[in-house]
Amino acid sequence: MSIQRIDVGPRLCEMAIHNGTAYLAGQVPEDTSLDARGQTAQVLGFIDTLLARVGSDKTRILSVQIFLADLADYDAMNQTWDEWVPQGHTPARATVQAKLANPAWKVEIVVTAAV
Amino acid sequence: MSIQRIDVGPRLCEMAIHNGTAYLAGQVPEDTSLDARGQTAQVLGFIDTLLARVGSDKTRILSVQIFLADLADYDAMNQTWDEWVPQGHTPARATVQAKLANPAWKVEIVVTAAV
Amino acid sequence: MSIQRIDVGPRLCEMAIHNGTAYLAGQVPEDTSLDARGQTAQVLGFIDTLLARVGSDKTRILSVQIFLADLADYDAMNQTWDEWVPQGHTPARATVQAKLANPAWKVEIVVTAAV
Repeated sequence: MSIQRIDVGPRLCEMAIHNGTAYLAGQVPEDTSLDARGQTAQVLGFIDTLLARVGSDKTRILSVQIFLADLADYDAMNQTWDEWVPQGHTPARATVQAKLANPAWKVEIVVTAAV
Repeated sequence: MSIQRIDVGPRLCEMAIHNGTAYLAGQVPEDTSLDARGQTAQVLGFIDTLLARVGSDKTRILSVQIFLADLADYDAMNQTWDEWVPQGHTPARATVQAKLANPAWKVEIVVTAAV
Repeated sequence: MSIQRIDVGPRLCEMAIHNGTAYLAGQVPEDTSLDARGQTAQVLGFIDTLLARVGSDKTRILSVQIFLADLADYDAMNQTWDEWVPQGHTPARATVQAKLANPAWKVEIVVTAAV
């Protein structure tokens, strides 16, 4: 089966699709001046945009791994998450704390979705 | 292809199944008074129960990500794991240390399995 | 659908294949005297070898999770990665810092690939 890749850069692509499943790169905020809620909203928006490019959407997300730079932002992240996630279609999820590649990033989200 | 979701809550579901693959949410202990061996046993029991609900079982696990709050519990977790994991059907696995959302949790396990 | 497992040990296997997708165990360096570049190169070599055993290769990797024991090694890891990763076929990727099971390991890489 063939592999489709979206936004293929020299180091990574933003999304690889194979056999009806989309694997997204860790999505991170672009505007690091935002607080945890704002950064989370931006990251979730990037996920929406990527999924739309292959005809998928947030009701078709299978699993999510959330890395928070500081678990003190857990409630703030969840407030934004809870407003965004579609009721009846919530994905499997795990959240842990981990230091992220850019110290200004508060959150990084890795998504696997059905296409 | 359709997606089946198990124990769908407002924030996440405990398991999403698509195209013959089950993606489980990070499983965590319920009884946080238990030591690392006890918490691991409880988490593995939750995994057994979830897999059984879609006709799968621990011989059909593909990959496992284990997050330990403290790698000092690595040997204790592994003792329980080694007693539980079915010989000849051991999954791909990775274990790292990460601070978990509830400071009383010693272990969180993320499973992908064949259904 | 049947599951194929490679290098099945008592605790884990090095790779499980199901439905056209290969799930690799977290690959770690064997020679811990190596620096971050050398450890990364060794880990990527193990990934090449595992993928070759099921007729896959690095052009068919879907997603990669990189755990670095110290993000100070981010640039060194990336130098080796950038030399290795096939242009036009780069995978989805996420990199975070996490303490690894052996304190001498600088990097652990988890791969999902198409077979």
